[in-house]
Amino acid sequence: MKVIPIFELIREDLERVERKMREVSHIEYEQLRATLDYLLGSGGKRLRPALVVLSSKFYPADTEKVVSLAAAVETLHTATLIHDDLIDNSFLRRGNPTLNTMWNRAATVLTGDYLFARAAAFAAETESVRVVSIFAQTLMTICNGELNQIFGSDEGKLTREYYYQRIYSKTASLFAASTEAGSLLSGAPETEAQALRNYGYNLGMAFQIVDDVLDFAGNEGDLGKPIGSDLRQGIITLPTIHFLEAHSGDEVVTRVLSSRAEGDDEVHVFQLAVEVIKESGAIESSITEAQRFVAKSRDALSTLPHNEYRQAMLDLADFVVERQE
Amino acid sequence: MKVIPIFELIREDLERVERKMREVSHIEYEQLRATLDYLLGSGGKRLRPALVVLSSKFYPADTEKVVSLAAAVETLHTATLIHDDLIDNSFLRRGNPTLNTMWNRAATVLTGDYLFARAAAFAAETESVRVVSIFAQTLMTICNGELNQIFGSDEGKLTREYYYQRIYSKTASLFAASTEAGSLLSGAPETEAQALRNYGYNLGMAFQIVDDVLDFAGNEGDLGKPIGSDLRQGIITLPTIHFLEAHSGDEVVTRVLSSRAEGDDEVHVFQLAVEVIKESGAIESSITEAQRFVAKSRDALSTLPHNEYRQAMLDLADFVVERQE
Repeated sequence: MKVIPIFELIREDLERVERKMREVSHIEYEQLRATLDYLLGSGGKRLRPALVVLSSKFYPADTEKVVSLAAAVETLHTATLIHDDLIDNSFLRRGNPTLNTMWNRAATVLTGDYLFARAAAFAAETESVRVVSIFAQTLMTICNGELNQIFGSDEGKLTREYYYQRIYSKTASLFAASTEAGSLLSGAPETEAQALRNYGYNLGMAFQIVDDVLDFAGNEGDLGKPIGSDLRQGIITLPTIHFLEAHSGDEVVTRVLSSRAEGDDEVHVFQLAVEVIKESGAIESSITEAQRFVAKSRDALSTLPHNEYRQAMLDLADFVVERQE
Repeated sequence: MKVIPIFELIREDLERVERKMREVSHIEYEQLRATLDYLLGSGGKRLRPALVVLSSKFYPADTEKVVSLAAAVETLHTATLIHDDLIDNSFLRRGNPTLNTMWNRAATVLTGDYLFARAAAFAAETESVRVVSIFAQTLMTICNGELNQIFGSDEGKLTREYYYQRIYSKTASLFAASTEAGSLLSGAPETEAQALRNYGYNLGMAFQIVDDVLDFAGNEGDLGKPIGSDLRQGIITLPTIHFLEAHSGDEVVTRVLSSRAEGDDEVHVFQLAVEVIKESGAIESSITEAQRFVAKSRDALSTLPHNEYRQAMLDLADFVVERQE
């Protein structure tokens, strides 16, 4: 298992989480087993399980339960990605015909549901009512955010307030749940659990802003997706908001946002819009905001014991803004 | 609120469940609020909440928690119906073009997810780790059954064993969870919780068989859907299995099952197949099986105190096989 260097410290725990998540041998159908193994295995950096594990290390915790919670959080994350992907691919992604067959779509809805259930069962293994409750509330927050994206007005989505609410729902809520619940499993006092929740929240906000910045300024090869994907899908992120605050009447970006460009012209206008936003300084001011969240996440750790786990969490905060993918 | 006469005894509790389930005033968007209210309100007989409430009545229970569990169970049931409907409407239903727009489909996936989350949050309010665990396991069973329906082989689906496994996943598992968990919330001894689980399991099996029989032999007006819907969707239920056991080479039914009929011919062949199955005695032998499950569900109650709640559960068992819708 490949882990980022910061996580070497907790490699053994992360490997247990990995095994727990990917244990699908009880599933009857080969095709489904292979699909689940692929879906559960294709995850990225396992940040959320690492946050659970690190947050549980300040007091003696039952590793079994910590591993269950970490598996619950990452399985939940995977389930939401599967449904997101279904929605994006099947219904929202512009231009590209989807490759899914009918059966695959039905299977996708159900596989996501199955993973939600599995995540809930892992959460229940912690035998902590409070942890289960945090878990359920977080899933509601995530779904609520997605529903707002569907039901909210287009103008509302251009506001900074809406953006922050959205990235909280989408990312920071699960980061915060991971650190708070991990800490609670170790029996940490309430003030420390809240400090760790704070750390997770701010880290998650920074992480998502950087993700959104990379969508403009990253390298397509590193990211594995084309630059400007969000804008193409009509999703307004911080760089665009920064840009519009400074250039409210800009013709190119306005055309993109109102989806008035079509065909070859559309591709050209998108590329132009991405360039215009990149050159406006909107990337730099977005990174400055991410750094403010990172600083707050580091601050939140100040009351915790100075040990190697706290150091790893500080390093992780720096990693989040420095990463290129 | 309309309740079936057997449930008059627990009307007050059921009304509390109804209010809890339908409390959506905190939801920001009018359109979503109205949709949720419709989805949560359009439910049928509220059998599952009634099973939770009745099962909790043999020992003194915290009504608040019982109401939470009942709301959890019915909300979970609603969520699974929403996703089922999406799958059926969008991908599987023969012939009829679906009315959903793109946005509505995305909203449907997410609304189902949101209700799963809400159900999990209600379950967590019981503050019983065991109840939450039963709840999560049941959701896995339900999803697993749906996935088997997708991944299983066509021949496998003609077996009685597969049918029983499917109706357990689809219906009896949640009935059994409702009665077991309701009983556990009242602090009932393990033997009684298992007796009530047994009652719920057998009642659920009978309920689903009767549902499947009504799909052949019911009245379209009462059912609100055309006769033979299951067969049209390629779902093999007990009457068809009984029929095939007696007439394995029947040409009409074989043509329907292999989906070789098309267009006008298709409709005609379906109607014919339904008639052939109805006239074969397969309906009567299916009802006999349902009655066997009902008898077992009644037997399971024999060790419980003889009171009005037990009597209501016995009456409910009879109602399940006698109902016409």
